[in-house]
Amino acid sequence: MAAPSASAEVRLQELGVELGEGPSPLGAYVEAVQTGDLLFLSGMLPVAGGKPAFVGRLGKELDAEQGRAATRLAAMNALAAAKKHLGSLDRVTRVVRLSVYLATAGDFFDQPRVADGASELLRDVFGEERMSVRSVIGVASLPLGMPVEVEVTMEVR
Amino acid sequence: MAAPSASAEVRLQELGVELGEGPSPLGAYVEAVQTGDLLFLSGMLPVAGGKPAFVGRLGKELDAEQGRAATRLAAMNALAAAKKHLGSLDRVTRVVRLSVYLATAGDFFDQPRVADGASELLRDVFGEERMSVRSVIGVASLPLGMPVEVEVTMEVR
Amino acid sequence: MAAPSASAEVRLQELGVELGEGPSPLGAYVEAVQTGDLLFLSGMLPVAGGKPAFVGRLGKELDAEQGRAATRLAAMNALAAAKKHLGSLDRVTRVVRLSVYLATAGDFFDQPRVADGASELLRDVFGEERMSVRSVIGVASLPLGMPVEVEVTMEVR
Repeated sequence: MAAPSASAEVRLQELGVELGEGPSPLGAYVEAVQTGDLLFLSGMLPVAGGKPAFVGRLGKELDAEQGRAATRLAAMNALAAAKKHLGSLDRVTRVVRLSVYLATAGDFFDQPRVADGASELLRDVFGEERMSVRSVIGVASLPLGMPVEVEVTMEVR
Repeated sequence: MAAPSASAEVRLQELGVELGEGPSPLGAYVEAVQTGDLLFLSGMLPVAGGKPAFVGRLGKELDAEQGRAATRLAAMNALAAAKKHLGSLDRVTRVVRLSVYLATAGDFFDQPRVADGASELLRDVFGEERMSVRSVIGVASLPLGMPVEVEVTMEVR
Repeated sequence: MAAPSASAEVRLQELGVELGEGPSPLGAYVEAVQTGDLLFLSGMLPVAGGKPAFVGRLGKELDAEQGRAATRLAAMNALAAAKKHLGSLDRVTRVVRLSVYLATAGDFFDQPRVADGASELLRDVFGEERMSVRSVIGVASLPLGMPVEVEVTMEVR
């Protein structure tokens, strides 16, 4: 684990995470809104290169490991949107809130482990001392049949 | 599109939108809470005249066009609740966050278009420069069997 | 009803509510994050003594009365987490936002009454003048098969 004072941008590089372009809105909304020192981000999907990287439901077409990869990818898209707005992720002083929505089928109850795909990326980039609160919800469906959606709120300077 | 500086109250009139009384709480809560310059609103349902205007699920009893009308109506109820609290919608400086919950059946993946029923109303009233972030979630059921619920957070002065 | 100025800590005692240890995170997150005068809490489950106190879905294995007890227990866990962070619940100046997620089966539409298990506890502890906005959502599943999850945001001093 890097020291608490380490730069989020440096950690991203150390982790070998390359943020893409970030998502584009699918309607009449934007990807980031800052009010005071709170940065709200849109619900992020596991999209890469403008296309769904995962389609299906957890516990049916997809297993928990695929779910972890999907929440991690969605969290990367949140970071890309935040960076586009802020210029640098070093302006993030705290990850405040994380909501993870999982499209599940039948009796899939391994939600916390799947959600950790997003939480662990955020912890590794911003450090343990900036970890967020979290809600995890199993839902009926998500846009374009994707298995996960991740909503992040940050405190910024 | 009206100029960015146009009044939200004027736009509402130009659009011919008449806000009703607004919803009444169904339990031990209120419709609006302001903290600092953030105005949080309760989850709004497609209710008119105190009664559900739409009942059923998207992809089963209701189609996408009906869903768009339902999210628009729910957003009108959010505006009514905001106006009751603020006195005038001209005090809204930004629509910060919009969450759209859709009760879907089977393989209904047209959520973004349905959610735009709410997003486009908010854009038309407050202008493109005040558009919100957005999350869209397909859920199992909503109060009283209604198809949509819309939660709005605003920045106000 | 106690006077508006009554202490939340006194009311808790009068109600005979004993807050337990509060929940422990199930992953890479924390139970409470304060930013400015907003206190965000993680989604709380109906856990007691570290174990699920209710398992199943509303409208199938569990009825509305059990659901009310479950949302009340989850709200008690939110209070425990808030108290651990704040030292005293008397620092809460407003309950801002409450989201109630209910795992429902088939045609269970009694969500508002079930959600009131949480809302009424918060009203009884903090008073009517500090009641929150609320969203109630019927979902497909929740962590470990529990029937309810409750997310609370507070204004604090």
